[in-house]
Amino acid sequence: MPMHVGGLQLFEPPADAGPEYVREMFESMRDTERIAPLFLKHPYRSVKTGGTLTWRDDEQIDIEHHVRHSALPQPGRVRELLELVGRLHSTRLAWERPLWETHVIEGLADGRVAMYTKLHHSLVDGISAMRLMASTLSSDPDRRGMPAPFAEGAARRRKPEPESSDSLPAAAVDAATTAARTLADLPGDAVRTALSISADAAGMPLALVKTLRKGLKNETSAVSLAAPRTIFNQSITGARRFAAQDWPIERIRGVGKATGTTINDVVLAMCSGAMRTYLTELDALPEQSMVSMVPIGLKAKQAGSASAEGGNAIGSVMVRLATDRADPADRLRTISQSMKDGKEALSSMTPAQIVAMSAIGMAPSIVVPMLRMQGIVRPPYNLIISNVPGPRVPHYWNGAQLVGSYPVSIPINGMALNITCTSYAGNMGFGLTGCRRTVPHLQRLLTFLDDELAALEKAAGVS
Amino acid sequence: MPMHVGGLQLFEPPADAGPEYVREMFESMRDTERIAPLFLKHPYRSVKTGGTLTWRDDEQIDIEHHVRHSALPQPGRVRELLELVGRLHSTRLAWERPLWETHVIEGLADGRVAMYTKLHHSLVDGISAMRLMASTLSSDPDRRGMPAPFAEGAARRRKPEPESSDSLPAAAVDAATTAARTLADLPGDAVRTALSISADAAGMPLALVKTLRKGLKNETSAVSLAAPRTIFNQSITGARRFAAQDWPIERIRGVGKATGTTINDVVLAMCSGAMRTYLTELDALPEQSMVSMVPIGLKAKQAGSASAEGGNAIGSVMVRLATDRADPADRLRTISQSMKDGKEALSSMTPAQIVAMSAIGMAPSIVVPMLRMQGIVRPPYNLIISNVPGPRVPHYWNGAQLVGSYPVSIPINGMALNITCTSYAGNMGFGLTGCRRTVPHLQRLLTFLDDELAALEKAAGVS
Repeated sequence: MPMHVGGLQLFEPPADAGPEYVREMFESMRDTERIAPLFLKHPYRSVKTGGTLTWRDDEQIDIEHHVRHSALPQPGRVRELLELVGRLHSTRLAWERPLWETHVIEGLADGRVAMYTKLHHSLVDGISAMRLMASTLSSDPDRRGMPAPFAEGAARRRKPEPESSDSLPAAAVDAATTAARTLADLPGDAVRTALSISADAAGMPLALVKTLRKGLKNETSAVSLAAPRTIFNQSITGARRFAAQDWPIERIRGVGKATGTTINDVVLAMCSGAMRTYLTELDALPEQSMVSMVPIGLKAKQAGSASAEGGNAIGSVMVRLATDRADPADRLRTISQSMKDGKEALSSMTPAQIVAMSAIGMAPSIVVPMLRMQGIVRPPYNLIISNVPGPRVPHYWNGAQLVGSYPVSIPINGMALNITCTSYAGNMGFGLTGCRRTVPHLQRLLTFLDDELAALEKAAGVS
Repeated sequence: MPMHVGGLQLFEPPADAGPEYVREMFESMRDTERIAPLFLKHPYRSVKTGGTLTWRDDEQIDIEHHVRHSALPQPGRVRELLELVGRLHSTRLAWERPLWETHVIEGLADGRVAMYTKLHHSLVDGISAMRLMASTLSSDPDRRGMPAPFAEGAARRRKPEPESSDSLPAAAVDAATTAARTLADLPGDAVRTALSISADAAGMPLALVKTLRKGLKNETSAVSLAAPRTIFNQSITGARRFAAQDWPIERIRGVGKATGTTINDVVLAMCSGAMRTYLTELDALPEQSMVSMVPIGLKAKQAGSASAEGGNAIGSVMVRLATDRADPADRLRTISQSMKDGKEALSSMTPAQIVAMSAIGMAPSIVVPMLRMQGIVRPPYNLIISNVPGPRVPHYWNGAQLVGSYPVSIPINGMALNITCTSYAGNMGFGLTGCRRTVPHLQRLLTFLDDELAALEKAAGVS
């Protein structure tokens, strides 16, 4: 099963771009001389240490293997782009080389250039990956001579600009640069845990397992929601489909203001309504409400001992998506209330419980199979919907304006669909990543998301 | 390690092709309703039979997963095509689906359309794959309504036209249609053997192992050549490079006629000279001559018991490439003599020895690791050079003329380079498939092959 996260970025070439622009862009990236440490390491089973996995530098790094020039067939619509990104996201990264690839993609009929990057889950989580990519851009359209995202010194420490209060906090998601710095110092255990995703979760402390089990079996706990079985919660294949689209944050905010809900609530309501239509068409809508795991930021005092480790912690809330309700306004209200309840419950949780929640949020691929081993057979949630704040103002790479940014995430066995949103320069970009076989006609969800936003606007009286 | 064979075909669109030609070609293939049995089956570990691998039909075949539309970046040279084919040949086929992919590739600046097809080694060997693809074409340029190569009824039984007497015989290589017919009836053992390539060669009969070991240790036997270690004979990675080019058979035949050698001898001499230059540049030329395994056809009486199974058998000869000689004419003479000696030795071999030779030729990926287990550490040969005859006259698919055909083969651990040639309509197409890491600058071999043909022409006095 592929275990990498990715990002799709769309760029508008600068005004002075010539006919050879994309090739030159690709070649300048390919000719990078000094690669950042994160992009040089690959896992290595050391004979000296008795077969333990460690990291080591690829001494003969083959940059042309990692940086690739691709093209779209005619007519070069977004549809052809999403098809290619789905394919590229389906192939595994080989452990014998550093665990990343960047594709510079030409051939969009409107002249935009796409960049798809993938990074193994053991290096960064999806949120950090988006951050890392954003951190290599500049808000200055005139800046030139900027290095490739994987070049040494490309990632800057930047002040994040959270778009909504529900979203991940600033400090917690500055993990990308930290990851880049500290990867070399990771102990063998961490490497083993990060890579042995499908194995026996040997890296998880027993105390954590116990807390999780207890929390999930206790109906009154904040982690206690049990989700209905859906088509998303079954074994998956290695092939992927990807769909992505933007909606103006102003529209989402408008619904929120008129209904007393947050931007994040409205994003969840869009997903809920879209999911309901999608599953109804497939005759597969469960009777009970679906449950989404939603990662959220925690204030230091909430996080308890977690804050001692230098910064805010990331928790997660199980949110009822109200997919059993027919009315859009009713769904939004229920979601908003469920989110409030979850956050309140989180604030009353013990630090150990919060760590357990974080574990589910940060490493579902480890935790979900482990829960199954612990005899918990119903899925703890049906899917993960994340919302990661990105830059508010336009950003550029050597004069090329970033005009769209979409996370490409990891479906896992039992969680065949992942929705990750990221805000950027006034738009909310949705990235939907699904198993190609388990989640048919993934593109339709984009239409349903669009329909649902319109329905919410109508219900809120703002359309 | 990827275990699939492939083929790259170049087509010239018909005179009446419109601007949407490639898309229409792709869509007509994608819209195939009835898929041939070979292209429907996937391996399946049956619970009923205690975990034994069997074949079963993919009930929900996802044709868009198997038939793909791709494009080349600017400037759309053969170089960009080879780079893409190398990438496509590097990704593994998932066992959960039928083991094939076809890519319709647009974007060559000269207007030609490329088609790259890959098929898992367990379905067909490389030779059969080329045959299978050729058998779906027609020599009639006006024929239309032809089905896709993977459609039911696409493969015809055709009379093969061997280009040279050294090449594989007609009947022996009509295996593709046979494979298509009989795959469903394969016993579990055969499936296990074909798929457990890197495992313990459990499917090989002990008698065969003994014969092989004996033959390889006996210096006077026809299988007794031991090759020097070269950079090609080490562990490889999963990534591939591919290079391909044509040379007029008339030029190759001209050298043969002037020197009393065969077309196949001259092809081997081209490879030998190119290899010598390539390894000299890398400062890696072994002192002793390199040895190539060359599959050849056997007459029924030579093959002994093998002929009882209905047709000629395929044997193989170990040929000294004379890479230790500086003079092109000297190399060609030595190769020609080594080939004669090998064929003579083969004619005096027992049926069991011939079967052992065939095993090396047909399934090196099984046999070579097995030899290592048997304590035979020197490689039995340095690389495989095959020469497969193809159609002599131009062939077409729905009016599109096939103008080039190149096999894409399987490097394995210990055999990092494979050269497979196929003749077609007056040209000899060379397909070079190498491990991306172990065989650097693979494209240079094309230049060296070209230089070597010129040197041979000069030495033979025909230039």
